[in-house]
Amino acid sequence: MKILKTIQEMSVFSKKARRDGKSIGLVPTMGFLHEGHLSLVKSALLSVDLTVVSIFINPAQFGKNEDLDKYPRNMDKDLALLKEAGVDVVFAPEASEMYPGGFITFVTPQGGLEDVLEGEIRPGHFRGVATVVAKLFNITEPDKAFFGQKDAQQCLIIKKLAHDLNFSAEIVILPTVRETDGLAKSSRNSYLDAKERKAAPAIFKALQMAQHMIELGENDPSVVTAEIRKMIGRTKLLDLEYAVITDPETLHPVDSIGGRALALIAAKVGTTRLIDNIMIER
Amino acid sequence: MKILKTIQEMSVFSKKARRDGKSIGLVPTMGFLHEGHLSLVKSALLSVDLTVVSIFINPAQFGKNEDLDKYPRNMDKDLALLKEAGVDVVFAPEASEMYPGGFITFVTPQGGLEDVLEGEIRPGHFRGVATVVAKLFNITEPDKAFFGQKDAQQCLIIKKLAHDLNFSAEIVILPTVRETDGLAKSSRNSYLDAKERKAAPAIFKALQMAQHMIELGENDPSVVTAEIRKMIGRTKLLDLEYAVITDPETLHPVDSIGGRALALIAAKVGTTRLIDNIMIER
Repeated sequence: MKILKTIQEMSVFSKKARRDGKSIGLVPTMGFLHEGHLSLVKSALLSVDLTVVSIFINPAQFGKNEDLDKYPRNMDKDLALLKEAGVDVVFAPEASEMYPGGFITFVTPQGGLEDVLEGEIRPGHFRGVATVVAKLFNITEPDKAFFGQKDAQQCLIIKKLAHDLNFSAEIVILPTVRETDGLAKSSRNSYLDAKERKAAPAIFKALQMAQHMIELGENDPSVVTAEIRKMIGRTKLLDLEYAVITDPETLHPVDSIGGRALALIAAKVGTTRLIDNIMIER
Repeated sequence: MKILKTIQEMSVFSKKARRDGKSIGLVPTMGFLHEGHLSLVKSALLSVDLTVVSIFINPAQFGKNEDLDKYPRNMDKDLALLKEAGVDVVFAPEASEMYPGGFITFVTPQGGLEDVLEGEIRPGHFRGVATVVAKLFNITEPDKAFFGQKDAQQCLIIKKLAHDLNFSAEIVILPTVRETDGLAKSSRNSYLDAKERKAAPAIFKALQMAQHMIELGENDPSVVTAEIRKMIGRTKLLDLEYAVITDPETLHPVDSIGGRALALIAAKVGTTRLIDNIMIER
């Protein structure tokens, strides 16, 4: 497994692979890998010739008061996991390599998708995500790029980005991987103490409850979200930020539930923000 | 010469060329070609295996009250010129192909370079330029892309774009091509009536005067721009929008002229906006 630290090295590798007719799969990560990431890696390994995993904690997607500095890191363990999985290349640049002095060009979703939910609570977050993804696409030239459905809004924005700016990468979205108690795997789960960890699965339980209500015929989203609020509200240590039933493509809240809907929750567990979502088919 | 109208066709061509180890040169244009464009084409033909010229009047870079609708067009003549020159591919998509419904992802320079001069007078102009250039780079995958120094601010922004977002294209900037009386070649010169055409060369004469003043030792930019104002002011039909002496990299006005400086002028000739610039070395 090659570990490449510079854009130059990564770019040379990608261009050679392209010339050799080899397909490239990119799994962009911020490291501190869990089984969610590894499911993306496995999917890449099965469908492309060369699997590239990037490990880069992208400062551009963190707000001023967010957890950039304390975001969990464990490069040695990450590299061991990726080597064992059979990854071809790890691209792990420094922030100064990706955002040198004088950096001014951002990729900016401007259609509304970026201003709601995570984008409303984390202004500029999706500009940072879109910018780093565009950079990684240009550096690694992937045929396919793999993302997890846990970050549903990010997935939609990246699909748009790839389509709008004519990147040739196919965007592959894979299901959320969960702990046995339903909690979505997330690097940020490592922030939780024992009590918070015990409380956190209520987020997914509330999503499952919403799914059941809708499957049983409830079509008023306000009735469903009121129940979510109640359930999260009575769970100690949990503080709901949003609970919405939306159109799965636009993320606009729906007036009435019919066909497919996406239910999304963000909640604080102690001081840790967690997000999760569930696709609901009527 | 192939004429390709869809992104799909162009993309297939580029990918095949890349696989075959052929280098690609891109000359992005809005058509109504003149010798300025053709000098870019000639340079491409000499330095790459395959020369692609795009002809696309990019709506995203025109403001609401600008000349998008009346921008001059002559596709038949353009194609004849490019065929004669020996161009390999003309990429001429429709606006609906480049900006389909639901388009939301823009490339946005956000460092100040985009807010001054042309960017101040034409808000959003450089967002439109950067977005279409990023799209064209992804569609045509050029090794080199060719731009004219007449659009000095555009050149700087595109160099930044390519560097910041890690496009692998080398940005080649070529000198402004001029009429025998000094007027910079521009598709918009076709808007000028006979009297306006006669007045227009005063723009370049004012730039040359500025160059001479500085070469003779003047280092106070306000003295130089005052002379430019006077000269343009006494030319009938000309209305100066800006005249500045700037740092050639940042486009910040300089306090004192030492070393290299870039003098830029924008003026209306009748109802037609023209721009020009000159690099001055002390």
